[in-house]
Amino acid sequence: MAESQEIVRAYGAAWLATDPGERRAHLEQAWADDGVYIDTNTRVEGREALAQLIEQTHAAFPGHIVELTSGALGFKGYLQFTWHMRQPDGEILLTGTDFARQGNDGRLVELIGFFGAPPPLDD
Amino acid sequence: MAESQEIVRAYGAAWLATDPGERRAHLEQAWADDGVYIDTNTRVEGREALAQLIEQTHAAFPGHIVELTSGALGFKGYLQFTWHMRQPDGEILLTGTDFARQGNDGRLVELIGFFGAPPPLDD
Repeated sequence: MAESQEIVRAYGAAWLATDPGERRAHLEQAWADDGVYIDTNTRVEGREALAQLIEQTHAAFPGHIVELTSGALGFKGYLQFTWHMRQPDGEILLTGTDFARQGNDGRLVELIGFFGAPPPLDD
Repeated sequence: MAESQEIVRAYGAAWLATDPGERRAHLEQAWADDGVYIDTNTRVEGREALAQLIEQTHAAFPGHIVELTSGALGFKGYLQFTWHMRQPDGEILLTGTDFARQGNDGRLVELIGFFGAPPPLDD
């Protein structure tokens, strides 16, 4: 199984890449053919659909950067890592935590993307 | 579907309960019959096995408290929340983030427990 840090680094690089060919190369390394991406707003299946989602996100948020803010915390093929979306002026628009699973070859077969952080305890 | 905050609150109460009957009552509310709990150290299937795991944890860490440190962040049946294990002297021995899924009736069918936090980015 590919090392989880490499997989997550490649996944993060796919979100940074502005060239479609480069983005697909990173996803080839990080994402299973039929991997499923789920967040609050959307659900897409397959590497090509994820490549398109990233492209659409870049188009919808011009000048914004989605970048990892941690390495991977993982065990037994389960991974967790954090990221944020940074505005052109440097302000952080959104932070999040992604939870993912690796398939047998190490590539991600499922990713659940949480926006924000868990709320405080209510008493 | 039961409200995610209630489910997570009942799950947290099960970890605090020292009476086995009370613990099972909380798990009845929070945990599916065949729910699967996975962390770095163990994997248990079913509500009764989880009740025993909690009991074993209490026995192995006398005077320690496992308690929630957040409410639930959730969407579409996916949940995330944080917790810690506190020593008798008040020091925090371990922190963690749990990722879970709700079944159709809202009870948890799977929980992946991460110990610690994702590591810093390496450059």
